Amino acid sequence: MKPRIGVIGASEVNAQEYKNAEIVGKEIAKRDGIIICGGMGGVMEAVSKGGRSQNGLVVGILPGKNDKEANKYIDIPIVTGFGHGRNIIVVSSSEVIIAIGGSFGTLSEISFALRLGIPVIGLNTWNVSDQIIKSQSPLQAVDKAFSCIANNNSSGM
Amino acid sequence: MKPRIGVIGASEVNAQEYKNAEIVGKEIAKRDGIIICGGMGGVMEAVSKGGRSQNGLVVGILPGKNDKEANKYIDIPIVTGFGHGRNIIVVSSSEVIIAIGGSFGTLSEISFALRLGIPVIGLNTWNVSDQIIKSQSPLQAVDKAFSCIANNNSSGM
Amino acid sequence: MKPRIGVIGASEVNAQEYKNAEIVGKEIAKRDGIIICGGMGGVMEAVSKGGRSQNGLVVGILPGKNDKEANKYIDIPIVTGFGHGRNIIVVSSSEVIIAIGGSFGTLSEISFALRLGIPVIGLNTWNVSDQIIKSQSPLQAVDKAFSCIANNNSSGM
Amino acid sequence: MKPRIGVIGASEVNAQEYKNAEIVGKEIAKRDGIIICGGMGGVMEAVSKGGRSQNGLVVGILPGKNDKEANKYIDIPIVTGFGHGRNIIVVSSSEVIIAIGGSFGTLSEISFALRLGIPVIGLNTWNVSDQIIKSQSPLQAVDKAFSCIANNNSSGM
Repeated sequence: MKPRIGVIGASEVNAQEYKNAEIVGKEIAKRDGIIICGGMGGVMEAVSKGGRSQNGLVVGILPGKNDKEANKYIDIPIVTGFGHGRNIIVVSSSEVIIAIGGSFGTLSEISFALRLGIPVIGLNTWNVSDQIIKSQSPLQAVDKAFSCIANNNSSGM
Repeated sequence: MKPRIGVIGASEVNAQEYKNAEIVGKEIAKRDGIIICGGMGGVMEAVSKGGRSQNGLVVGILPGKNDKEANKYIDIPIVTGFGHGRNIIVVSSSEVIIAIGGSFGTLSEISFALRLGIPVIGLNTWNVSDQIIKSQSPLQAVDKAFSCIANNNSSGM
Repeated sequence: MKPRIGVIGASEVNAQEYKNAEIVGKEIAKRDGIIICGGMGGVMEAVSKGGRSQNGLVVGILPGKNDKEANKYIDIPIVTGFGHGRNIIVVSSSEVIIAIGGSFGTLSEISFALRLGIPVIGLNTWNVSDQIIKSQSPLQAVDKAFSCIANNNSSGM
Repeated sequence: MKPRIGVIGASEVNAQEYKNAEIVGKEIAKRDGIIICGGMGGVMEAVSKGGRSQNGLVVGILPGKNDKEANKYIDIPIVTGFGHGRNIIVVSSSEVIIAIGGSFGTLSEISFALRLGIPVIGLNTWNVSDQIIKSQSPLQAVDKAFSCIANNNSSGM
């Protein structure tokens, strides 16, 4: 299976966050990773757009009951109908999480990841734990994400 | 987005059901559809195996908390941790359902599909509604599934 | 803990089904059982009304995001936001299920109960398994439900 | 309907947190509120114990598949089988949340509450938002929780 990287962040973002998420999406796709996200707007749209531009595979785990709500760059919509309850599925389906900026929804996802022992790479995000691995740029975030996956695989996890 | 076809059935099957599910998986992949299934054994494994053999894309929506439980033909494991509660996600993420044989879990999925208005193609499965579209062979089931999707798209649904 | 009896059925019912569900609710409350239901209209409202009339305890496990959608006889609304995904919670929270009439949603709940090994008492409901225990009247249904719980407890389940 | 107050906190706690949660449970029950919690150990057990000691009503929304896992003070176990996914149900079923101490699971619940606009009273808990209403004692926390509910009701929410 290809590496699966969850990218989380708010549905309302500033230009810098959007740009960062788009670069993250491009880089994951270039390295043949699968992008897992919440499928909606903001960071979710930007990372999907970046991934699609490189012919990557983009999975959107949607809160609502209809695939029509997915942003237009999603390849595979997963329609949960579970509202914010889908946040934990975004997290638990990912081998590592990259958090960009973020709202309270993002914080719920970071919390679940830390609870489940899934590594979190942070890019200007919530600072709630020393376990969050800080990054200074979108490229560095993707580097660290792939390193986490490589380390987990080599350690037999 | 590529057409998404959910294939459901029991985790314990006889040889004929396994063979049928494998053919269904092959045919969906040949026609460039995405296979959505529950990711475990039996019908779920057979359809995944068939899809993988044709380089198709196979999504497994898992009941447990770990991608290790996925059968070995799954490309994209969605890890829900929701137990049988994941059944409704299998259904609502699909544009049409093919039901092969089936247990009570399969019946719960057929019920959800009928409730949500998602077409169900049946191959020797539960006979609980005239709305289930019967098929006599795996090839016919796949034909009917793609016809349902084409009809839905042309009718603006 | 008091015995918990799930009562399921369609949100649109005829007068006989409504009456039957109301009697079921009254009888469960008279015998000091807790009523678990989906919290909405039809059978769910009728059983809640019956239970409330006897000062019983009525739990409504709601599909939506707001307790305002509960029928007016619910004592304890559980707000899931999981849509039809809440059906499995109705079932798994109950020690026994009474199914009255029923739609496809009801069939999904019967399927889950049979899958999980939770006894189902049927009153003019789906006839999909010999494991469903048939009853001829609402009083008989409640009798059989309490017998199931007593048997399970005495057998150490 | 009686007021419903969610009480959240870690399953592993120190003596002070346990004592505080027990007092919170007692006070909610004395004022005829319903206690909503996650049904397990630590803060969840303590608040349940306090509530039960005053003949209050205690609802435990469980992560697992079996009511046997509930702590012994739970009156009404809600069996979800959704793992940590049940956290959002604890929150959305409550009119106000009291957070005592807390782990990453607690943080996920605080995040959901803030996201959904449900008031959070904090007693030595995560300090992630000015919206969290701080309290200095368990009695003050319960006071503030009932005030929030009274205010919401009078403002037509």
